[in-house]
Amino acid sequence: MARGRFITFEGGEGCGKSTQVRRLAAQLQAAGIDVVLTREPGGTRLAELVRGLLKDEREDPPCDRSELLLFLAARAQLVRNVIRPALAAGKWVLSDRFSDSTFAYQGYGRGLPLDTIRLANDFACDGLKPDMTLLLEVDAATAARRMRGREAATATAADRIEQAGDDFHARLREGFRALAAAEPDRIRRIDASGTPDDVEGRIWTLLKPLI
Amino acid sequence: MARGRFITFEGGEGCGKSTQVRRLAAQLQAAGIDVVLTREPGGTRLAELVRGLLKDEREDPPCDRSELLLFLAARAQLVRNVIRPALAAGKWVLSDRFSDSTFAYQGYGRGLPLDTIRLANDFACDGLKPDMTLLLEVDAATAARRMRGREAATATAADRIEQAGDDFHARLREGFRALAAAEPDRIRRIDASGTPDDVEGRIWTLLKPLI
Repeated sequence: MARGRFITFEGGEGCGKSTQVRRLAAQLQAAGIDVVLTREPGGTRLAELVRGLLKDEREDPPCDRSELLLFLAARAQLVRNVIRPALAAGKWVLSDRFSDSTFAYQGYGRGLPLDTIRLANDFACDGLKPDMTLLLEVDAATAARRMRGREAATATAADRIEQAGDDFHARLREGFRALAAAEPDRIRRIDASGTPDDVEGRIWTLLKPLI
Repeated sequence: MARGRFITFEGGEGCGKSTQVRRLAAQLQAAGIDVVLTREPGGTRLAELVRGLLKDEREDPPCDRSELLLFLAARAQLVRNVIRPALAAGKWVLSDRFSDSTFAYQGYGRGLPLDTIRLANDFACDGLKPDMTLLLEVDAATAARRMRGREAATATAADRIEQAGDDFHARLREGFRALAAAEPDRIRRIDASGTPDDVEGRIWTLLKPLI
């Protein structure tokens, strides 16, 4: 049996990846592919508990180093217990965020050293890399409008990380662009402006040849 | 103001360190020293939540890599928010376990590579090392008897890590001995057999010259 494919979705807040990862999963399933849909941090019981600490702990919020290590702890569990077994069983795994978010948020955003992140992340993933990463890009104004729309629609407030300031979000976008420039074959930049149908069409054009 | 001193207690399960760290704290306080007593994993609200995941999560227990990263996440928070501020304020910090336990349990016990642990631990601690480490040693039979006694006295079962098999606990003891052999100036081996008063006397003899 062929090993499945591992596709990750990346981008700043409000880029629309959570919508698009679900739409791609539906299209792949319609094409007869067995799909596992997951997200980071999360995707296992333990990793979802860690997610709660990362997103919602405001009384004793993780310091930058602790934040990085918690993300990696959740990732190690997800890779070992979910992603690798699914790939070995020939399934496709789609993840809403993965390693590139760590480089963008904790590296470019928080300012932790990229070489340390690389070593620790390789350890957490035991070397696993995505086959393809879709980087969804929108301008800052569109991202802010979508985030406000989501907060209104779901009656939820932005979480601890989403609430970081404009400078932080600008560094994130810059970080994602630098990551894409360094690995253009793996990381494909997607114009995520326009309607969800437009974006879905752009993604499908890229993905169809892999099936 | 002089920087305080950082003293850690290490050893396998049932070596009596939790008792001795409290006794040393009381003796130092009686000598007029301002003491902060902490434990690992734990010592901050976030780190205690991580402790719960490490000790009690049985439905989705952390894989070895995730376990290491969770311990280090808890440590990073404790160092940054508790230990460094206390030392800077001239207090003495006593910790029931610290980095050496990670080398013994996750390195020698679980078999994760020691060089990777060293890099990741240095990152988590931001370079902080104990001024002195007291390694409490008892033979396997004494340790097992004390653990059974504690379980009976507190009506609690052994936690996930304490329940690891005899081979694991033998590798731990070997690991602690190797660590002490590599850093004999920092890590002082203490004969932890005999009564709590005997052990307290041996520790006080070592510590008194530091005051």
